[in-house]
Amino acid sequence: MGKYYRETPLERSETGESRTIDWSFESIVQHAAAEGVYDLGPGYLDPQLIPVPDIKAAFDEALSRYGAAALAYGHNQGALPFRAAVADRLADGDGTDYTPSHLLATGGTSQALDLLAAAVAEPGQAVVVESLTYDLALQIFRDRGLVVYAVERDSEGMLPSAVDQAAARARQERRGIAFVYLVPTFHNPTGSEMSQPRRTALLESAARHQMLVVEDDAYADLPLTPRTRQPSLAGLADFRGVVRLGTFSKSLAPGLRLGWLAAGPRLCRELAGRGLFTSGGCPSHLAALAVGLLLESGFYEDHLRWLHSELKCRRDALTDTLHNLLPGEWHLRPADGGLFSWVDIPAGVSEFDAVAAAEQGGVLTSPGERFGSDAEPGVRLSYAYNSPERLAAAAASLADAWRPLSAG
Amino acid sequence: MGKYYRETPLERSETGESRTIDWSFESIVQHAAAEGVYDLGPGYLDPQLIPVPDIKAAFDEALSRYGAAALAYGHNQGALPFRAAVADRLADGDGTDYTPSHLLATGGTSQALDLLAAAVAEPGQAVVVESLTYDLALQIFRDRGLVVYAVERDSEGMLPSAVDQAAARARQERRGIAFVYLVPTFHNPTGSEMSQPRRTALLESAARHQMLVVEDDAYADLPLTPRTRQPSLAGLADFRGVVRLGTFSKSLAPGLRLGWLAAGPRLCRELAGRGLFTSGGCPSHLAALAVGLLLESGFYEDHLRWLHSELKCRRDALTDTLHNLLPGEWHLRPADGGLFSWVDIPAGVSEFDAVAAAEQGGVLTSPGERFGSDAEPGVRLSYAYNSPERLAAAAASLADAWRPLSAG
Repeated sequence: MGKYYRETPLERSETGESRTIDWSFESIVQHAAAEGVYDLGPGYLDPQLIPVPDIKAAFDEALSRYGAAALAYGHNQGALPFRAAVADRLADGDGTDYTPSHLLATGGTSQALDLLAAAVAEPGQAVVVESLTYDLALQIFRDRGLVVYAVERDSEGMLPSAVDQAAARARQERRGIAFVYLVPTFHNPTGSEMSQPRRTALLESAARHQMLVVEDDAYADLPLTPRTRQPSLAGLADFRGVVRLGTFSKSLAPGLRLGWLAAGPRLCRELAGRGLFTSGGCPSHLAALAVGLLLESGFYEDHLRWLHSELKCRRDALTDTLHNLLPGEWHLRPADGGLFSWVDIPAGVSEFDAVAAAEQGGVLTSPGERFGSDAEPGVRLSYAYNSPERLAAAAASLADAWRPLSAG
Repeated sequence: MGKYYRETPLERSETGESRTIDWSFESIVQHAAAEGVYDLGPGYLDPQLIPVPDIKAAFDEALSRYGAAALAYGHNQGALPFRAAVADRLADGDGTDYTPSHLLATGGTSQALDLLAAAVAEPGQAVVVESLTYDLALQIFRDRGLVVYAVERDSEGMLPSAVDQAAARARQERRGIAFVYLVPTFHNPTGSEMSQPRRTALLESAARHQMLVVEDDAYADLPLTPRTRQPSLAGLADFRGVVRLGTFSKSLAPGLRLGWLAAGPRLCRELAGRGLFTSGGCPSHLAALAVGLLLESGFYEDHLRWLHSELKCRRDALTDTLHNLLPGEWHLRPADGGLFSWVDIPAGVSEFDAVAAAEQGGVLTSPGERFGSDAEPGVRLSYAYNSPERLAAAAASLADAWRPLSAG
C-alpha cells in the first residue's frame, strides 16, 4: 500500500526548515496485509471495493444540504432521513412494516452489540451463541462480564433444541439468560444460511423460554446465488422478542462506522434514552445523513449489484480452484453469500496444523477455534480482501500446503 | 430553523406522481429551540458558530488524500495523523510529553465515559463526583450500574478532603471506588476553575487512596479571559493515575462525535484492545482524519481565536446586562471560560421557583438540581446557543422575572 504525505510542516526546526512526515497505510487503518503473503483473514472488503468517490460526493451533498444540522448533535435515535430510508428499504426486502420508529442508528454492529450487552443484560447473565460464531461478538460479551453458552449448530445454524438445553443449564446455574445471539444469514464464519422452517422453530423455542433473540444480519445484503431470500427473524416475529442488526460496514465501507438496530419502537426509544445517546446524540450522525442520500438516490442498490458481481467473481476464483485441487478428504462448504468460504478438515488433521501449513505456504487463514470452538474442525477463508487472481493463486497454494497433511 | 427538502422521490404513487418529504431541523438534530422563547439550556454551540464550509473542505481533503484508508476500519487506537496532531497540540499547551501512544481517539466525551465506566469499573463500585457536575456523566455512570458519591466542592471545585471522606465511606460500605470524575477547567455547570495548588492537593489526596482520576477537559479550549492557563491534572501527574478527556464537540462541531482520551500508553493500549475497538476500529475514523487536517493546517487555532471573541461577546451581553439589572440578592459568578454562567439564587427562593419564573418570562434555564444536588442553589445559563442581542434581551427578561421573587 502507498504512503500519504503531510503537505503542511509538523514543526519547524530552529533553522526554519520544515519537517514532513509520511504516514503509512498501516498507521491509518486497523490492519494491512503483510507483504508477500495471501491474507485470507480479514472479514471485510478489500479497500479496492470501497466506492470512495461516491461516498465523498455523499458527504459533500449532506453537508451542503443539511449545513450545520449535519454537524450538530444528531437526533438521539438517528436522523430521520436516514431512518426513513432504511425503513423503506427493509420493508421492501422483508415484507414487514418497518417504520423510522422501529430503527435506531448505530455506530455499526460492534457498537450495537456493546450497547445491548450493557442495556438488556446484567453482568453474570448468559448469552446463548452458536458453537461457531463471530469471534469479536464473543469478546464484546465477555468484556461486559457476560457468560457465553456456546450451543450446538448444524449446517443451517443453531438448533432449536439447543435453546431448550441452554435454558435448562441456566436454571441449573441459577443464571439469567440475557439473549440469544446468532448470524442466521451467510453465517460468520461458515457461510451457512438458516431455512425458514428452522427460523420459525428457533423463534418458537426462544419464545417458549422468553428469551430475546439478537439477529446479526451483517451479511444479509450480500447474496451471491440467485435464490429465494429468507425472511428475517425480526420480520417473522414482527419484532416480538427479536432485535435485528444491520451494518453498512460489510457492503459499503467499514470506516463509516454506521449501522442500524431494528426493534419494537419502545425498545428503540429506551435505548436512545441512555446517557450515551442523550449526551452526544446518535453515533455517526454525519455518516448517517450521507448514507441516507445514497439510499434515497438509488446508488446503494446499484452499488450492491456491482458488488455482488465482484464478490461472486472472487468467491468463484477461490472455490473453483479449491474444488479442482483440494485433496479428497477436505470439504468445501457452499458459500451462497457473505464474505466467507469454510473448509472442513479431515479427521486426524488439527486446525493448528492446517493453519500452520497454510501459513508456511504463504496463505493466512482463520482456524475455527478463533470462533469459539473446535466443534466443527475447519478453516475460514475470506474472499473479500483479495483480487480474483490472488485468490486463485492462494487456493492453489492452500491445496499444495494441505496435500501432505492428508497423505501423512 | 429552515426545512430541508428531499430532491428525490421517496416513493411513487400508482399514478406515477412522486411524493416529496420535507425534513424539519428537529427531525435531524437532538434538540431545537422552541419558537418564541430564549433557550439558555443547551450546553453546546449555536449552529451559527459551527464552521461548516471549513469542515466540509476538511472531509473532502481527507477523502482525497487518504482515499479508501479513510473508509476502512480505522486504527484501533485512532489514525496516527490525528493522534500525532493532537499530541503536538497538547504538548505545546501543557508542557508535558504527549505522544501518539498517550492518546486514544474517542467518539466524544460521552463515549469515553461510557468506555471507562465499562473498562475500569465494576458494577456496584462508586464514582466520586463534585456535588454539582455534568448531568449526563451521572446518567452514563448510573446506566453502567455505578454508584455516585457526590462530594463537597467550593468555588474552585472538588475539595481534597472530600476525596478522603469518600474513601472512608467506601470502606464503610465495602465498596470499591472506580474513579474520581471532575471538570476542573471551566466547570459544568458553574464555570469555576481549579487553581494549581488545589490541583496538586487533589492529586495527592487521590494518590494516597490509589484512586484513578478522570479529568473532563471538555471546555479547556475555551478560555475567555486572558490569564495564566492552569496545567492539566494529567500534566501535573505525568499521567500517573490520571485519564484526561478532550472533545471537539464544544469547540468545533458536536456532530463530529470526536474526542480524545489521554493516559499512559499501557492503559491506552488496553482500552483499544477491547472488543468494541478490535471489532470496528476506532470510532469516528473519518472525522478524526478530517480534524487532523484542521489541526495540522493551523485552522483550528485560528478558529479558536475567532470563537473566543464570539463567545466573549455573547458572555458579555448576558453578564453585563445581568450585572446591571439583577436584584441585589442574586449573585452572578465570574465565567472566565467555557459556555456557562451561574447565578446563585437568594436564600428563601427555590431553584424550582427561579426556573419557573424564568420560563414564565420566556427564558429556559437549567436548575442546579439537574446537575446532581441543591448544595449550591442556583441556575445555569448557557451563553453559547444564542446571539448577543438575544442574550441581552434574555438577561433583561430574567431580571424582570426574578425581581418579584426576591421582593416576595
